[in-house]
Amino acid sequence: MDYKFSKGVSSLQPSVIREILKTSAGSIPLAAGNPAPDAFPVDDVKKILGDVMQNEPILALQYGISEGYAPLIKELTKLAKERYGAMGEEDALIITNGAQQVMSLVSQCFIDNGDVVLCEEPSFIGALNCFRSFGATLSGVPTESDGINIEALEEKLKTEKNVKFLYTIPNFQNPAGATMSFEKRKAVYELAKKYGIMILEDNPYGDLRVSGEEVPAIKSLDKDGIVIYSGSFSKIVAPGIRVGFVTAAKPVIAKLTCAKQTQDVHTVMLSQLVVYKWLTECDFVAHIEKIKAIYKRKLDLLCDCMDKELKGFLEYNRPEGGLFVWAKVKDGVDMRDFVSKAAAAGVAVVPGNAFLTDMTREYNYIRLNFSTPSDEDIVKGIKILGEVAKSY
Amino acid sequence: MDYKFSKGVSSLQPSVIREILKTSAGSIPLAAGNPAPDAFPVDDVKKILGDVMQNEPILALQYGISEGYAPLIKELTKLAKERYGAMGEEDALIITNGAQQVMSLVSQCFIDNGDVVLCEEPSFIGALNCFRSFGATLSGVPTESDGINIEALEEKLKTEKNVKFLYTIPNFQNPAGATMSFEKRKAVYELAKKYGIMILEDNPYGDLRVSGEEVPAIKSLDKDGIVIYSGSFSKIVAPGIRVGFVTAAKPVIAKLTCAKQTQDVHTVMLSQLVVYKWLTECDFVAHIEKIKAIYKRKLDLLCDCMDKELKGFLEYNRPEGGLFVWAKVKDGVDMRDFVSKAAAAGVAVVPGNAFLTDMTREYNYIRLNFSTPSDEDIVKGIKILGEVAKSY
Repeated sequence: MDYKFSKGVSSLQPSVIREILKTSAGSIPLAAGNPAPDAFPVDDVKKILGDVMQNEPILALQYGISEGYAPLIKELTKLAKERYGAMGEEDALIITNGAQQVMSLVSQCFIDNGDVVLCEEPSFIGALNCFRSFGATLSGVPTESDGINIEALEEKLKTEKNVKFLYTIPNFQNPAGATMSFEKRKAVYELAKKYGIMILEDNPYGDLRVSGEEVPAIKSLDKDGIVIYSGSFSKIVAPGIRVGFVTAAKPVIAKLTCAKQTQDVHTVMLSQLVVYKWLTECDFVAHIEKIKAIYKRKLDLLCDCMDKELKGFLEYNRPEGGLFVWAKVKDGVDMRDFVSKAAAAGVAVVPGNAFLTDMTREYNYIRLNFSTPSDEDIVKGIKILGEVAKSY
Repeated sequence: MDYKFSKGVSSLQPSVIREILKTSAGSIPLAAGNPAPDAFPVDDVKKILGDVMQNEPILALQYGISEGYAPLIKELTKLAKERYGAMGEEDALIITNGAQQVMSLVSQCFIDNGDVVLCEEPSFIGALNCFRSFGATLSGVPTESDGINIEALEEKLKTEKNVKFLYTIPNFQNPAGATMSFEKRKAVYELAKKYGIMILEDNPYGDLRVSGEEVPAIKSLDKDGIVIYSGSFSKIVAPGIRVGFVTAAKPVIAKLTCAKQTQDVHTVMLSQLVVYKWLTECDFVAHIEKIKAIYKRKLDLLCDCMDKELKGFLEYNRPEGGLFVWAKVKDGVDMRDFVSKAAAAGVAVVPGNAFLTDMTREYNYIRLNFSTPSDEDIVKGIKILGEVAKSY
């Protein structure tokens, strides 16, 4: 059979990262983006699941409504307003199957084949592949240490046709680690308004700040209903339960809810109940402080090791949070060759070109993760990378 | 802001049924499709969740791979081959976020704006809305008591352009209750092959046969890699955990997996572990026999009540399984008026036009569900419908 796949999907390849993860079992995992297992609130979840199955088993097992479990929506609305500054009076909120589903729902609701999605370059491959799969043409805007280049963004807005939205990760961007300054956030908002496009603000790591000052969400500036804000519990509770949320203007949420019905009817009730009870019955603020300490320790360890073993070979800016360090490989070294040799030596890292709109471009960066490996493996992994580096 | 939604989504409305469910709280629920709460294996799930959180909490909480939990894939592959006759040697299987996600993944992978999807008429609104949302034009083929009309199907295949696939629910079709004969299944397969289209075979109710003989799946005839088969645990374990699966030729599964990555990364690990352990550690065959007895009792009760209270007003064929009875309202009665009066009297049923490709068409049918209401409510609900019927 000569399968006639849709235009967006026919050229789509599996996520490079997820393929690396499947083939690098046994390697030291500096490639993944998994939270540290000791950052999971195992005892809390265990108690909650026991309580739920004891007291509300039918609620947990029966169909729910597409918007999400109403008490959780109420709780998250409070949090989105007060903690994240990501919800106004004209906005609504629904629960999603992780933040990845927000990308997918927004794509389904806004992208027609051939529409343009602007994104930071480099950017999160899971979002880029999602936009591609819905037939979007990606157009990348260079980023700097304080976020997207505003002049380049305006140039794109002037020249590109059919731009539907800008996709941005303002906090500890994946992969580049940069946090967008408040000035740039205001500029981005004004440009989006001026050129009549939406902003999709993805904030999966916002709670994981380990240094520097909080910067208000772009969504906090939204008086015009043009910002869609995506939040996630993957990094602060656990990714395996797949719970995220989205806030946006009510007419947008109405469409996202329709799309949600067509994608999976509703988010798993057990998972929603875990998050609801974790927020209302556990000390989630203390837990976040605890995991921030874990991530600060691991980030510091990675950077210390890099400074010791890879000085002059890898150049990087220390991020203020998140899970990744983005590093430039020394000029004259073939990045893909380095990544292959590292893999052969037992260390998995992600080649930077995976995060580009055109993955075939030459690009001398790699992404290193510090949340997945044990402290021991960070030390060992960077030591091995240092040895591989010496061969150049 | 004048939102520029995608073509498929801009005219999309929320599911009529899910809207009825939201507004009919307190009514007798003959409109839903919820499994009976006493059909949930509550004790099994409770024990499994306790064991999982005791022994494998990190597996349950960490990211999984997009294809699904490998031991569950292995178990379901066995089941798909041996129990459902729905998987050949050239096929693969992945786990989905309920069967609804199979509709969505297939849509994402096959539908470009303007492509045609053929479906039985009437058919499952959740699937139809999904195809619509991806920009498909729906083309309905009339169904009879033994399934789709073959001549009408061939006529459509001759005249419609850009047909991507036929969507069919061969067992206890939702809403019409019909089971497609084996002769028709063979004819449908041959026609699809002849005209070069795919078949999407949706079998959420297959395990719930309460009378008549098993009929092999269309997928069991598939020598050409043209049938995509969708299975679900919503009706035999619980819908709130959202676990389904899909089997298809390996190149198709590869694309569906890419799409799955873009939609939600992977299915909730807790849910996958529940199903895996339920299949391997519990007596799931005995459980299915138990719930079939529940549904047979409730179906018989509904039919007995209808025969007593609504004879001459509602005409129906008793289905051999599933969750629904499809009934024709007496000629000369305005179906929508009857449904409104029933709602006002406290009984929710679904107007039949909700299941049409063109929902504005006049259509004198309603769908009645017997799994959601208690036995008492079935008796009471049908009595009320009988009283409403007398007003005509």
